[in-house]
Amino acid sequence: MKTLMVAQSGGPTAAINATLAGVIDAAQASPDIDRIYGCRHGIEGVLHEMFVDLTAFSEKEKLKATPAMALGSCRFKLPAEPESSVYQRVADVFSRYNVGYFVYIGGNDSMDTVKKLSAFFRDQPDAPVIVGAPKTIDNDLPGVDHTTGFGSAARYLALTMEELCRDLSIYAVKSVTIVEIMGRDAGWLTLAAGLPRFLGGAKPDIIAIPEVPFDPEEMLCTIRRLHQTQNGLVIAVSEGIRDKDGNYIGASAQSGAVDQFGHSYLAGAGKYLEHLVKERIGCKVRSIEISLMQRCSGLLASATDLDEGFSLGQFAVSLACQGKQGTMAGIRRIQNHPYQTELFALDVGQCANQTRYVPQRWWDLDSPAVKQEICEYLLPLIEGEAPRFYGKNGLPDYVIFE
Amino acid sequence: MKTLMVAQSGGPTAAINATLAGVIDAAQASPDIDRIYGCRHGIEGVLHEMFVDLTAFSEKEKLKATPAMALGSCRFKLPAEPESSVYQRVADVFSRYNVGYFVYIGGNDSMDTVKKLSAFFRDQPDAPVIVGAPKTIDNDLPGVDHTTGFGSAARYLALTMEELCRDLSIYAVKSVTIVEIMGRDAGWLTLAAGLPRFLGGAKPDIIAIPEVPFDPEEMLCTIRRLHQTQNGLVIAVSEGIRDKDGNYIGASAQSGAVDQFGHSYLAGAGKYLEHLVKERIGCKVRSIEISLMQRCSGLLASATDLDEGFSLGQFAVSLACQGKQGTMAGIRRIQNHPYQTELFALDVGQCANQTRYVPQRWWDLDSPAVKQEICEYLLPLIEGEAPRFYGKNGLPDYVIFE
Repeated sequence: MKTLMVAQSGGPTAAINATLAGVIDAAQASPDIDRIYGCRHGIEGVLHEMFVDLTAFSEKEKLKATPAMALGSCRFKLPAEPESSVYQRVADVFSRYNVGYFVYIGGNDSMDTVKKLSAFFRDQPDAPVIVGAPKTIDNDLPGVDHTTGFGSAARYLALTMEELCRDLSIYAVKSVTIVEIMGRDAGWLTLAAGLPRFLGGAKPDIIAIPEVPFDPEEMLCTIRRLHQTQNGLVIAVSEGIRDKDGNYIGASAQSGAVDQFGHSYLAGAGKYLEHLVKERIGCKVRSIEISLMQRCSGLLASATDLDEGFSLGQFAVSLACQGKQGTMAGIRRIQNHPYQTELFALDVGQCANQTRYVPQRWWDLDSPAVKQEICEYLLPLIEGEAPRFYGKNGLPDYVIFE
Repeated sequence: MKTLMVAQSGGPTAAINATLAGVIDAAQASPDIDRIYGCRHGIEGVLHEMFVDLTAFSEKEKLKATPAMALGSCRFKLPAEPESSVYQRVADVFSRYNVGYFVYIGGNDSMDTVKKLSAFFRDQPDAPVIVGAPKTIDNDLPGVDHTTGFGSAARYLALTMEELCRDLSIYAVKSVTIVEIMGRDAGWLTLAAGLPRFLGGAKPDIIAIPEVPFDPEEMLCTIRRLHQTQNGLVIAVSEGIRDKDGNYIGASAQSGAVDQFGHSYLAGAGKYLEHLVKERIGCKVRSIEISLMQRCSGLLASATDLDEGFSLGQFAVSLACQGKQGTMAGIRRIQNHPYQTELFALDVGQCANQTRYVPQRWWDLDSPAVKQEICEYLLPLIEGEAPRFYGKNGLPDYVIFE
């Protein structure tokens, strides 16, 4: 009988605690596991021995519906050199707590941690099995159909865009509203915000993703053309849109700050385009950043997403118990009508530090065939309203580990 | 038997169509009314005879749950001079369509239209009765306990703030997040965003409303103090916060554009404070504008708010049928436990173009007594999840007048 440790890392999503709940659920049912520890703040919780005992945790349904990260996150990147003392430190802690299984729930960068840890332990006898349970609202992990967390963020964006377009349709004055959506490299979330259009509606009028070079002049022409027959125009752009030379739109206006993984904190594509439209067209213009709400809100979570997150966590535990060192649980789509998926194991090396882009065959977003394919892909993921828990004061009632 | 005309004006809210549904419901039931016309784009719909025949409209429940403004809005201010041809034009249209009753649903500025129209018709024999049904998310209309639309916006903000604070709690790094909330003159919406704190929580750490002079230096001191024991700080500010001299915080950074009523389009208090914190403290800092979502989203609408909006519309029709020229329907609170209100008629002159501020006795937001009073006031208004209508594709199914 061994201990299972589970940790979370990266950015929050509405589904990452659903995966934690699934991990706890499967570990509690496993004959190989007698203790379950949650590590605070990802791998740092291991290094500093900050644990929550989850062995007898019972509020799994509520945890499943709790957004953000119940165990806390970190942005700690393991050193490239396996001889680094950090690895020995992890090994010591694991052996002291009799850890046989370690499940790391996180995004691309967290899978880098799984890759390095599993490589370190691979050739050691009786070593703990390191397994990854991926989540990312960005949906940019290679090798899988989609990632958990994306469906809820996509639902939040599709519904919010629908509301915004209604709001902006009521005035009989020419205006432009630019909605900036998360997506540093891949346009998956912006496609979700475009769903009202892909489903046959007129809005948003322009949809721009990082994969397709963006030409501000072309945008201005389109605005002038559409304003001849319409009033309130809505433009959905990824934060990471780039020009034909690969420079971020409005990059100059941005902070230039870089996180530990070398990603620049983007902000400003929307603001930049707002000023451009004001200057060059002069109509009423506003930019809106959906900001953190799209990633952290459980209020509009997709039931499908939370269910898949839970199953993914259960599956990750089974991979660990089967000794599948350095694997990651992934979702494969079998069919759409009815929507059906299966879980499978990937070598985490296949996806760590890599990005899955919107496929080039989808880049022509005005093509009816593309629109249909995008709807076929997205709609099952945002399906269903997840159950919500409210306290007596009407605010959400979530799981909090003290 | 007369025609009832109804129009909407001002900014969208989640409840303004609930009031429209209530107007239609009561008008259909009235023995004095044989026709119901909805005017497109407020009073402009009257001037240009843009009407929707609502006499047999049946989707009242769905309309009640439809956000924004089904009939469209306008920002047209009636001229001050009653001898202006505009008034004669309205009178001609009204008589041509046998209009006996005109219900105008809108905010402070729309009540100005009700005031002027009713003054014009007051001394004329057999003149149409002009009645106001107020709504405003800003909750800043004098003479009433609260306005419809506010409860849903307040619920959106309280819930969203709760989600944001969870999101921002997961990282073990010092940070400041400034959340900018609508409220040009009054801090009602920002109080709603502060509910998690008023209910006894720690977040948001600082709450700033326009009524209380804001001192950026004092904010910086508080941030430094709190950072000694905490990481992710959250600051909720109204867009209209001012310094002790009454100057908008960050006003210089703002567009200066002015709408037809002389209001400057505010934006930038949050961004200004973001830059200030970055420069003076240097920690990770971000500003978030909840922007239009707080006013337009029906996704988190308060059931209480939509119910009150519907009743308010019904009541406005009864005032019109009783010939109460120039009155406005208002909500008076009778008690909190259980929450109970009554509808009553005010002279529209009492509130048009005036602002109801957060009372001075509430300005000390850290006082336990104030916190409790604010919760007692706000909680009943955000109570209950309003029913939502989804189409087969999972997106909202709303009423749209072609």
